[in-house]
Amino acid sequence: MLTLDRIYHASYVLQNVIRRTDLISAPKLNPASNIYLKPENLQLTGSFKIRGSYYKISQLLPEEKERGVIACSAGNHAQGVALGATKNGLKSIICLPATAPISKVEATRNYGAEICLVDGVYDDAYQKALQLRDEMGYTFVHPFDDEAVIAGQGTIGLELMNQLQNIDAVIVPIGGGGLISGVAFAIKTLNPNIKVYGVQSTGAPSMFNSINNRKIERLAYISTIADGIAVKEPGANTFDLCSKYVDDIVTVSDDEISCAILTLIEQHKLIAEGAGAVSVAAAMFNKVPIEGKNVICVVSGGNIDVNILDRVIKRGLLKGGRTCMLTVELIDKPGQLLKISKIIAEHGGNVTGVHHERSNANLDINGCFLRISMETKDFGQIEDIKKALIDAGVRICQ
Amino acid sequence: MLTLDRIYHASYVLQNVIRRTDLISAPKLNPASNIYLKPENLQLTGSFKIRGSYYKISQLLPEEKERGVIACSAGNHAQGVALGATKNGLKSIICLPATAPISKVEATRNYGAEICLVDGVYDDAYQKALQLRDEMGYTFVHPFDDEAVIAGQGTIGLELMNQLQNIDAVIVPIGGGGLISGVAFAIKTLNPNIKVYGVQSTGAPSMFNSINNRKIERLAYISTIADGIAVKEPGANTFDLCSKYVDDIVTVSDDEISCAILTLIEQHKLIAEGAGAVSVAAAMFNKVPIEGKNVICVVSGGNIDVNILDRVIKRGLLKGGRTCMLTVELIDKPGQLLKISKIIAEHGGNVTGVHHERSNANLDINGCFLRISMETKDFGQIEDIKKALIDAGVRICQ
Repeated sequence: MLTLDRIYHASYVLQNVIRRTDLISAPKLNPASNIYLKPENLQLTGSFKIRGSYYKISQLLPEEKERGVIACSAGNHAQGVALGATKNGLKSIICLPATAPISKVEATRNYGAEICLVDGVYDDAYQKALQLRDEMGYTFVHPFDDEAVIAGQGTIGLELMNQLQNIDAVIVPIGGGGLISGVAFAIKTLNPNIKVYGVQSTGAPSMFNSINNRKIERLAYISTIADGIAVKEPGANTFDLCSKYVDDIVTVSDDEISCAILTLIEQHKLIAEGAGAVSVAAAMFNKVPIEGKNVICVVSGGNIDVNILDRVIKRGLLKGGRTCMLTVELIDKPGQLLKISKIIAEHGGNVTGVHHERSNANLDINGCFLRISMETKDFGQIEDIKKALIDAGVRICQ
Repeated sequence: MLTLDRIYHASYVLQNVIRRTDLISAPKLNPASNIYLKPENLQLTGSFKIRGSYYKISQLLPEEKERGVIACSAGNHAQGVALGATKNGLKSIICLPATAPISKVEATRNYGAEICLVDGVYDDAYQKALQLRDEMGYTFVHPFDDEAVIAGQGTIGLELMNQLQNIDAVIVPIGGGGLISGVAFAIKTLNPNIKVYGVQSTGAPSMFNSINNRKIERLAYISTIADGIAVKEPGANTFDLCSKYVDDIVTVSDDEISCAILTLIEQHKLIAEGAGAVSVAAAMFNKVPIEGKNVICVVSGGNIDVNILDRVIKRGLLKGGRTCMLTVELIDKPGQLLKISKIIAEHGGNVTGVHHERSNANLDINGCFLRISMETKDFGQIEDIKKALIDAGVRICQ
């Protein structure tokens, strides 16, 4: 059974291994509250996972350590186990689906793991890991449903209690539930008055559904940009701990998560992955009752694929009026592009792409579509540019 | 004259105002050295500037404080002075060129400053600030060539001496030279054996040139993505301090800076602006002799415009084989796009854009150009896709 002693012990074991991440004041995220960030994206391996996996591995019996450890993950757990094993002087084997992003495979390999790429999806890699465990005698490290792992993650709760007086609430991302189980247990045991809220993605609400329906439920299908918390089914231990210690669970959409990621970049110079930003999204979009409260958002990780990051930024720029796409119709004769370019330049727009289109059934035979991409300052500037184009006789199609 | 006492005093004055930013181990940036980051991008206002400006403002005489302070900047100095004045209970006026990015104007206003937008470029805004100073009796706060400002920035040097034993070298960005003057003075006074290296952009090497030619030189033209250190002429005080306390100054290119920004994102989940990343670029690209040494890179700020960040990421993705643009020539008949799409999908490429082009003098009358953008894993995958297309009879144009 999980005890506070166990979490204190984990904290002791981890003290020279992990980073005691800072607490960062973030007053602008929601002006109605006094918000702080616990940036575990700055933790070794880019997420909190090293806490649980290192502690788990350190507590194995000599015979469990002998052959090494095995895990299945394409994400943060893989890197946590790889580094946790290496730092404990153990061999690690990580099974990943062959479709895993090369960047994550390389990061895991660089932390000292032996990589086993498995054709198929996550479930195939998981089966392979169990098979190798049975055949080779490796010790399997579960990503969340394990008491030692949960105790390791719970060390974040102890740190928070030391880092801020008068905490009113802590907001924690939930995937399988290992992180929030440890954090909620630590905090509630020390001070039952502090609220602990969990956040899932609307596209993968496994713990949310399970807690609401009071039994463990498995999702048939999940889809979210927060791949780090895209878990189909909570664990038995984590379900029990969440039932007992978590005050409420809410969900946030992919758009809200994207917005939180971009806000963390612009206001706090921090890269969070989708899973890491759900706590911030919940605070920004008032999903939990935090008005006038001292609130800590645990930013659990930062291992976002750069391609995804690029898309999040693009979407954010478009939604914030910082980029703009215009399609205009004009007479197909010399000097037209010059005219349009001049108007845009005069109003401070910075053209980044132009595409002419002639053969289109909707067009006058002498007409031409011009699709223009540009960098802009804000929606006001976009409106100014549109107005000036219209005043100059240009027809704007969208 | 600058003294260590003054810097200790600044440190005392700043203790409950600024964040004592962490020191973050960054072993992978250059495996030959033991590198640490001092992430002043996580400082209040997103850069170190608040240290100098708060301290400077706190030390003004009552009559200098009365009317408030004025500064001219479109960047980090503006935000530093705005917050520094607000926290000291003073009014601040910031003159900015009207072309300044709206995000920076808004950030400055949000820290409590009154904004004065001036038509023209930086020099026009600067003249306006001097004019307002004379007319209105505001106290002008210089961005770097001021002893109190330098003492404030020097507090970073004191922190470093407390945060790491056995420092061999510190690498510091140079714009006007305020930051490195303070840091170098503090460190060299405490331990002359520690090397202090300065870094400028190849596109704005004002201190680099001035030190090499042993006199202050003004650059006629500057161009760099590191706008935070795009300074045409060093100050008299900073030139003297750099001459005396800085061991060497090197320069890094915009491509090297972009690579450092992307590496900080991927490996350390930190957003640095160009100016903030030059120290890391110098360490990554072996511009300074740091092999086998304990080295600290000061990451001075993170206020990068999101549009610029978007470009840096795009360039990094392209240069790392993570995105790819292919132009192929094919017979213009039904089913061609299907064929190409199938080959790309089978090899794991993710198509993000397709553009058909028919009317082109270089083409066979039945031919068609297809320009395809896709997300890829690495250069190996790109080569596999190209090979498969060629094997299927597709002609690749670039």
